[in-house]
Amino acid sequence: MSDVARLAGVSVKTVSRVVNAEAGVQPATAERVSEAIARLGFSRNLGARDLRRGVGTGMVGLVVEDVGNPFYSLLTRAVEEVARARGRRVLTGSSDEDPAGERELVREFCARRVDGLLVVPAGREHGYLRAEIDAGTPVVFVDRPAGDLDADTVLLDDAGGTEQAVHHLVGRGHRRIGFLGDDPAIHTAAERLRGYRSGLHRAGIAADPVLTAMGPHTAESVRAALTGPLRPATAVITGNNRITVHLLRVLAGAQRRPALVGFDDFELADLVDPPVTVITHDTRELGRTAAELLFSRLDGDTAPARHLVIPTRLLPRRSGEVSP
Amino acid sequence: MSDVARLAGVSVKTVSRVVNAEAGVQPATAERVSEAIARLGFSRNLGARDLRRGVGTGMVGLVVEDVGNPFYSLLTRAVEEVARARGRRVLTGSSDEDPAGERELVREFCARRVDGLLVVPAGREHGYLRAEIDAGTPVVFVDRPAGDLDADTVLLDDAGGTEQAVHHLVGRGHRRIGFLGDDPAIHTAAERLRGYRSGLHRAGIAADPVLTAMGPHTAESVRAALTGPLRPATAVITGNNRITVHLLRVLAGAQRRPALVGFDDFELADLVDPPVTVITHDTRELGRTAAELLFSRLDGDTAPARHLVIPTRLLPRRSGEVSP
Repeated sequence: MSDVARLAGVSVKTVSRVVNAEAGVQPATAERVSEAIARLGFSRNLGARDLRRGVGTGMVGLVVEDVGNPFYSLLTRAVEEVARARGRRVLTGSSDEDPAGERELVREFCARRVDGLLVVPAGREHGYLRAEIDAGTPVVFVDRPAGDLDADTVLLDDAGGTEQAVHHLVGRGHRRIGFLGDDPAIHTAAERLRGYRSGLHRAGIAADPVLTAMGPHTAESVRAALTGPLRPATAVITGNNRITVHLLRVLAGAQRRPALVGFDDFELADLVDPPVTVITHDTRELGRTAAELLFSRLDGDTAPARHLVIPTRLLPRRSGEVSP
Repeated sequence: MSDVARLAGVSVKTVSRVVNAEAGVQPATAERVSEAIARLGFSRNLGARDLRRGVGTGMVGLVVEDVGNPFYSLLTRAVEEVARARGRRVLTGSSDEDPAGERELVREFCARRVDGLLVVPAGREHGYLRAEIDAGTPVVFVDRPAGDLDADTVLLDDAGGTEQAVHHLVGRGHRRIGFLGDDPAIHTAAERLRGYRSGLHRAGIAADPVLTAMGPHTAESVRAALTGPLRPATAVITGNNRITVHLLRVLAGAQRRPALVGFDDFELADLVDPPVTVITHDTRELGRTAAELLFSRLDGDTAPARHLVIPTRLLPRRSGEVSP
């Protein structure tokens, strides 16, 4: 700080005032001090204070697909709660399912010296994180695994969920069961498709590829699938809450309604007509578990990469009871 | 950096490696460098780099009540989008409607040198922000005004919304109209109550205080109000999307359903039975407008505090058409 004072031609006390944004400094003086700080390329800040205490910057970065989606907003909230209990704050960003967006966010969070990262990956290549991880920044992948990296991961039991959904529908007499999933390039979508197929296989039903319509989906694509290739289906499984909502909107007022099991519970699922049978999971638990794993790494846990799975379960409501 | 190198007895290049978390430094050496940095109380960081470029830290702070609430998650998303277009990131935190929580978040964001702040205030006293604002950190209040500060504010037309709701219900023959609002200590709740009362007044109906049940609300308190003092009401206006959902759950399967107009639209409002008439507004527009105001301040706009209002409008569905 004395270098700054010397360069600006002011007292150390004045520099301190400017740096701490205290009153009583002439604007012209403050500007001279700021310029001196800039020229010396140093800035006293919270980061430095934390570094002295040995606790990092106190920020963790969280990359999700879209914080405006209820699934991610609950996840964000759960991460925030765990972080707050540890005296940390959360930097968030939405990747919009774009690998380049994910990389950009991660790089920026790292440049801001986050203590750790929670990433719902949009891409499947994570070698770019290797240097950061080696340098000691813990990274936990949430909801989807890292592409080419053995890293800490907390996932949902995606395949188990759709397998259960098939089992439920077969038990009600359905044999022509459709699947409306998300883009299979997304790990969770691929896993849910896998569970759907293995559920059919277990029930001794040959999977008919015509009854599978993978996304990304819009209300229009869901309508097209339902009035086209999926017409023969007496039951439909949807791959996530967004697709379920599209489907409900398409089916509103329809004469014929297939039985429905949706992946992800959602607010009001019990209040639409008929109430929607869902594959549910504890979204907050997913966020909490991931955040706690991250903090255990920050606390010095150096065990090999962990792979945790949060269970899913079928929550029966009336839409899953519609007869074939 | 040369001071650090001198103190640690290493080359400037080694200091640079440690600071940038690059490989190839012995742990003991890295520790010595960290100690030297700590003793000198300076840290080269992104903040310093940005300061040299004259663009701040590139972070804005956003304080909401609960990012897990769909209203705030959409708001957060809109702020993120505007910030991203300006090359900035968003630090978020939930105050849980606690003034102390709000202050704590704001102070921490300021300590992290955010370029600006967007605050959905939980409290009504904001004198504590005066010094920060005077020091040049722009602050925009969102959804609720500052308590004792003339500051930039972007609000919804809360009173106008409930006034419209009353007008709509009176037009369908209702005269005993109940209001289920949030805690009137919250500005938006007080304004919505004011609009409800002025709507009744305009229609020449004396407001019956018995028909008003202010929160905070739970499913139980909504049930108690509905089966108690609000029994005579032939129509009910709810003060926000949380209360509407509680009410829908209480009314599910009820024999008698009052007409309903809810403040805030919500996903599936058109798919529950009957579809819910709402007072709607563009939540993203609220977030966008507030973020753009903040960035105009960061770009040097020094006009007096602005007070912007986002319009609300009644979106008729069937629940508002139920006869008295």
